[in-house]
Amino acid sequence: MLVEERRSRIVLGLDPDPAALWPAAVAAAEGLGDRAVLTAGAVARHCMLAIDAAASACVAVKLQLACFERLGEQGWRALRHAAEHAREHGLLVIADGKRGDVPVTATAYAQALFGETPGPFGSVPGLGADAATANPLLGRDALAPLVEGAAQAGAGLFVLVSTSNPGAAEIQDQGPQPLHERLAGLVDELGAEHVGEAGLSSVGAVTGATRPGLLARLRELMPHAVFLLPGVGAQGGRLEELGPAFAPHPAAGLVTASRSIVNAHEERGGDPARAATSAAEELRLAAWGLAGG
Amino acid sequence: MLVEERRSRIVLGLDPDPAALWPAAVAAAEGLGDRAVLTAGAVARHCMLAIDAAASACVAVKLQLACFERLGEQGWRALRHAAEHAREHGLLVIADGKRGDVPVTATAYAQALFGETPGPFGSVPGLGADAATANPLLGRDALAPLVEGAAQAGAGLFVLVSTSNPGAAEIQDQGPQPLHERLAGLVDELGAEHVGEAGLSSVGAVTGATRPGLLARLRELMPHAVFLLPGVGAQGGRLEELGPAFAPHPAAGLVTASRSIVNAHEERGGDPARAATSAAEELRLAAWGLAGG
Repeated sequence: MLVEERRSRIVLGLDPDPAALWPAAVAAAEGLGDRAVLTAGAVARHCMLAIDAAASACVAVKLQLACFERLGEQGWRALRHAAEHAREHGLLVIADGKRGDVPVTATAYAQALFGETPGPFGSVPGLGADAATANPLLGRDALAPLVEGAAQAGAGLFVLVSTSNPGAAEIQDQGPQPLHERLAGLVDELGAEHVGEAGLSSVGAVTGATRPGLLARLRELMPHAVFLLPGVGAQGGRLEELGPAFAPHPAAGLVTASRSIVNAHEERGGDPARAATSAAEELRLAAWGLAGG
Repeated sequence: MLVEERRSRIVLGLDPDPAALWPAAVAAAEGLGDRAVLTAGAVARHCMLAIDAAASACVAVKLQLACFERLGEQGWRALRHAAEHAREHGLLVIADGKRGDVPVTATAYAQALFGETPGPFGSVPGLGADAATANPLLGRDALAPLVEGAAQAGAGLFVLVSTSNPGAAEIQDQGPQPLHERLAGLVDELGAEHVGEAGLSSVGAVTGATRPGLLARLRELMPHAVFLLPGVGAQGGRLEELGPAFAPHPAAGLVTASRSIVNAHEERGGDPARAATSAAEELRLAAWGLAGG
């Protein structure tokens, strides 16, 4: 398993902002086409450089679909190139789109993320992601096509249970049986028939690192789920509080880090790539030293 | 206002399935490129033909992003062409992606849907939608950038409150204060500062037509919201039960119809375009005759 081989539970988050790309990426894209083509080219290059710098300390990249989608068809092309580059470096690809819709549409998202779409000229392949994030607001029947589509492709799904933003609590944490507990129960049920040899299910959960007090209870409700933990660093989450996420298995918790790796040069100074390499390696060591590692 | 001018509250839903396109669309796309290009070309043509057929009875198209996204960058191109064609027919464009993410990412979605993205080569325009659907699971701070982005562009937002799929009730309807009521309260609050002259806010709600018993209460909680009502027809919702949605204003409820227009020929026989024209016009008349019209 990749986590044990690389002794890492770090996921490199790529949320490329065209206004804050590494200078080397912008320089490489100059003079190649119209505005959208140039920008998307620079975004793809930025992602590739960040992958080159941080890959050895990570097990996966998390590609934030919004950041590509805002560049339209050219952005979608950059997304594909970034995913291919990550795969060439032996990294898993997590498509972070938080998709969720009624069953017939969820099937279309499963084709987009994990499968292919049959049509009059043959099938068109999707993104080929190794995992994706999903929004469970529409309920069980809406998640099922994503769970099935992922399973058929040997991929995983991370269902939002407790998110890392400050406003999450108002919707997710209120009442005698808070929504995050009901969602955790749903994740556990949907994942039950997809538990592999290591005791981990292909149906995991997004559990923000910013409310670590919830993790012990969420682990109790979802003993087989891999927890994807955003929010460490810039958003205020602290690695040393995430113990319950990692408890069942070294790969039971994956820490995503975006700005703290890709923008490490802003604090450390010097070359962005070198700063990213150092930041990723430090994070790898710190996270690997925690319980369950 | 378009609704009163056209005497219609019908939204043409376009969820193109490459395996079930109108034959004329497939024929037009043959011989033009690789598999993805051909398929996306046929999808775009299918949407354009459906718009040509149904536009006069409708006020908007609802483009299901999943159905384009599954064809990658070529699909995103088809999406843009379908949106342009709808605009040329005087229809509003609703981007149905049910997006929702932490604030920084929600800002990226707002750029993708309503705005533009600044970068080193100038700004790259987004889809330019007149409205979009949004998922509120992450809470108020995650919706705010979409509300603001829409408002700045003179566009609207439809927030999921009560969805049309059978599994929705388990998550949205349980407990003494069900989630749909809390979401309705949130929609009303977020929309309060965006109420226009007609008494309608640019922050609306998706309220499935399949659970019409909820509509009166939801209307009470959201007096200024435009209700987007999916689920009529194939999913079992019935027009005559949607009265409370339309009560405050002729444009306070918009009925989306996808398969019942685009696939009307399957039941009626004959040419898909002619069947779609008839089905859309019948639906327009039926919905316009209801309370509030």
